[in-house]
Amino acid sequence: MCVTEKLVAPKPTLNKCSETLSSNNGTKPQTLSSSSEAVINLDQGDPTVYESFWGKAGEKCTMVIKGNELMSYISDLRKPCWFLEEELENTIKRLHRVAGNAVVDDRYVVVGTGSTQLYQAVLYALTTGGTAPDQQPVPVVCAAPYYSQYADETDFLRSGLYKWAGDAYAFDKEGPYIEVVTSPNNPDGTTREAVVISSPADQGKVLYDLAYYWPQYTPITRAADYDIMYFTFSKSTGHAGSRIGWALVKDEEIARKMTKFIELSSIGVSKDSQLRAAKIMGVICDGYQDFKSDENSENFFEYAHQLMADRWKRLREVVARSNVFSLPKYPQEYCLFHGEFTESFPAFAWLKSKEGAIDEDCEKFLRESYKIVGRGGRRFGADPSYARLSMLSREEVFQQFLDRLQSINNGTVSNGNY
Amino acid sequence: MCVTEKLVAPKPTLNKCSETLSSNNGTKPQTLSSSSEAVINLDQGDPTVYESFWGKAGEKCTMVIKGNELMSYISDLRKPCWFLEEELENTIKRLHRVAGNAVVDDRYVVVGTGSTQLYQAVLYALTTGGTAPDQQPVPVVCAAPYYSQYADETDFLRSGLYKWAGDAYAFDKEGPYIEVVTSPNNPDGTTREAVVISSPADQGKVLYDLAYYWPQYTPITRAADYDIMYFTFSKSTGHAGSRIGWALVKDEEIARKMTKFIELSSIGVSKDSQLRAAKIMGVICDGYQDFKSDENSENFFEYAHQLMADRWKRLREVVARSNVFSLPKYPQEYCLFHGEFTESFPAFAWLKSKEGAIDEDCEKFLRESYKIVGRGGRRFGADPSYARLSMLSREEVFQQFLDRLQSINNGTVSNGNY
Repeated sequence: MCVTEKLVAPKPTLNKCSETLSSNNGTKPQTLSSSSEAVINLDQGDPTVYESFWGKAGEKCTMVIKGNELMSYISDLRKPCWFLEEELENTIKRLHRVAGNAVVDDRYVVVGTGSTQLYQAVLYALTTGGTAPDQQPVPVVCAAPYYSQYADETDFLRSGLYKWAGDAYAFDKEGPYIEVVTSPNNPDGTTREAVVISSPADQGKVLYDLAYYWPQYTPITRAADYDIMYFTFSKSTGHAGSRIGWALVKDEEIARKMTKFIELSSIGVSKDSQLRAAKIMGVICDGYQDFKSDENSENFFEYAHQLMADRWKRLREVVARSNVFSLPKYPQEYCLFHGEFTESFPAFAWLKSKEGAIDEDCEKFLRESYKIVGRGGRRFGADPSYARLSMLSREEVFQQFLDRLQSINNGTVSNGNY
Repeated sequence: MCVTEKLVAPKPTLNKCSETLSSNNGTKPQTLSSSSEAVINLDQGDPTVYESFWGKAGEKCTMVIKGNELMSYISDLRKPCWFLEEELENTIKRLHRVAGNAVVDDRYVVVGTGSTQLYQAVLYALTTGGTAPDQQPVPVVCAAPYYSQYADETDFLRSGLYKWAGDAYAFDKEGPYIEVVTSPNNPDGTTREAVVISSPADQGKVLYDLAYYWPQYTPITRAADYDIMYFTFSKSTGHAGSRIGWALVKDEEIARKMTKFIELSSIGVSKDSQLRAAKIMGVICDGYQDFKSDENSENFFEYAHQLMADRWKRLREVVARSNVFSLPKYPQEYCLFHGEFTESFPAFAWLKSKEGAIDEDCEKFLRESYKIVGRGGRRFGADPSYARLSMLSREEVFQQFLDRLQSINNGTVSNGNY
C-alpha cells in the first residue's frame, strides 16, 4: 500500500465537497451529480469491507488485555523468532490447515510488523552474512505488473545489500539475484510462478508474497510449499490496523536472520496485536472446527468469498456496459477449500481503458474527471491505460464507485470527446 | 536492547540447573551455592519490574478491543503522521504535562514501533531528500559510553544515507553529521548534552533519545525543549511488549519524512498497541489529575521512584562492602516533579570492577564465574572493566542478583586469586 497520495487525499470515507469540476483539459467544465461530489479513494487496499462481518461476530472476537500482561520484550528465547507469541504461532498453523493454502509442517514462523517488514527481513536474510567486503547490492526483481511499492521499499535506505532492479522479464544479469513472486498478483490478480531462469541455478533466490492466497480471493488449488512465503493479517481477515504479518520459512538460518532484522528494526512485534490476531484467526478456525459453535453464525471465508463474488459481479456488469473500460478475465479452477470450481475475485480491480476511449492515462482520467482515486499502471511497471482500484472499501464507497463508473458509461464521456 | 545473547541464554526468569561450575581459568572448580545455580539474565533492560504495579492497578487498566475496531491502516490523513491515533496523541501530551519532562506545544507527534524504529526514522529524515547523487553517508556519532546497539541499528543495511562513526568525542570530520544524545544515558545514567562542536554551525543535527527522562529514574530539572526528541512506552511505564515509541518533532517536514520512513518500513504502527498505550498512560494521568480517583491507589511515578530508590539502596549497600566492584555516583538535583532534591536511580547499573580486583573483563567474570549475564563495557565503546546490568528485572531475580554479588564479597573472590 502506498500512502503518499493519502497525505494529501481526504480520508477514504466520503469527504463532501461541492465544487464545480473541470474536465482534464479545462475547456469543457462539467458538474458532477450530487451523489458523486465526494472523492472516492480506492488507492489503498484498506480492507474495511470486512468490518461489518466482525461487528456481527460479537463478543467472541473481543480482545481483553490486562494492565500487567504482555509487558516483556521476550516470548520464547528457545525459538528462532524469540518475540513470537506461542498462541499466535499455533493459530497461524491452525488457520493454514483450515484454509489448506500453505504447508506449515517443519516450517519456522517469523512474525513481522505487517508483511512490509517481512519483505525487507527476507531481503536482509538473503543478502547478509557474506564475507566479501566488496559485495555489490543484489538485484531484486519481480515480473511486471508488480506491486508499486517494491521499488521504494527496497531502495529507500540505499542499502548496500540489495537494490531494486525492476521487471523480472527484463532481467538478464549474471550472478546472484532475488525474485519476488506475488501470487495472486497485486495489482492484476493473476496466479504466478518465478520467471527468471537462473544460470547457474543456485544464483537466484525466490520469495513468495502470498498475501492474497486465501479462499475469498482465489481458488486454493494446493497447499503452497515454498521455502520462503509470507502472509498478512491485513488481507486474510481485514485487520490492517494491527500490522501483523508472518512468514513460513523452511531454513532455520534464514528464520534467524529475518528475526535479527526485525530485532534491529523494531525489537520485535507488538504483542498486543499478536494476541489479537491469534484471537480473530482462532474464531475463524473455531467456526470450521468446533461443532459446539453457534450454527447460525456464518463462517468467515464463505462470507468473504460471497461478498467478493458479489462485488465482482456488480463491477463486471457496469464495465460490460462500458465503452471505456475493460477488466481481466480469470480462469475457473477447482478450489480445494470450497470443493467446487470457482474463479478469482481479486482484492483490486485492474481496470484498463480501451484503446482510443480516452485521451489521457486511466488514473488521471478517473481522478480529475470523476474524483475516483486509483493508482496508475506506470507505478506497477505497466501501461498507463491501466489503473488499480481497491475492491475492499466499505459498501457505501463501493456503491458510489459503481454509480460513478456507470455515469461514465451513460454518455458523460464519448470516445475521447470531452 | 540487544538480544543476540538471548538467543542462546535462557529466559530471564530463573532457569534451574545444578551443574558444578568451573571458574574462568578452569583450574579451580567451585560449586555455587544452591540459591545461585541459575543463570541471572540482566543483559536486556526488560522492564518486568513494573508488572506487579499494573497487576494491582486493576480493571481500569484493562484494554478491550472489539473484533471490528481498529481495522483500517489509516487514522487521520490530515496529520503528518497519518497512522497516529488521536487518543494516543492526546494522552502522550497529557502525560508529558503531568511529568513535566518535555515541551509538547507546537510539536508534531510521530508514533513508532518502539523507539528503535524512531531512531532510524530520524536518521532517514535527516539524510534524505538531498539532490546530490554522490552524497556520502552522513556520519552518526554518540559520546562514549554509548548505547551498544547504535552501531548495528545504524549499519545493518549498509545504508548509503548514514553510517555509524562511533564516539562523538573522537569525531573531527568536516561536513554534515548527526549526533545522538541519550539523556539520561544508557548505559551509565548520566545527564548529557551534545558534545560535537560543529563548524560551520549548521552542519550538525542533534537528536535526543530521552527514553529514561522520567521521574522514577532521574530528577526532572526542566521540560526538555529540543527539536527532535523521542520516548518509549517500554521504559516510561514498562510495557515493552507493545513496541510503542513516540517522537516530539518541531519541524513539520521532519515529521513527514519520519512518517514516510515508518510507512515504507511497516505501513504504520499497531493500532491495538497505540490504544493500549493511551489507556495505560491515561490511567497514570488520571491518578494525578482526577480527584474522584481512589485515594488508596498509588500513583505510578511515586511508586516507581520509590522502587528504584529501594533497589539502588540495596545494590549500593552490597557494592559498598565489595572489594571488587564500584558504582557511579549521581549528583542530587532539584526535581520539579517530586518537588525535592533527588538523585538518579538509573534503569541500568554501570558496574565497574576495581583495578586489579579481577584478572579478566567484568562481563566475563560475572558470566563465567557467577552466571550473571550483563553486557560488557567494550560493547558501549568503554573499558572492559565495566558491565551494564539491568535494574528492571522481577524482584526475585533482582534479589538473587544481590545475593550472588554478596557471595563475591564474602571472600569467594579475593583480589584476583580465585
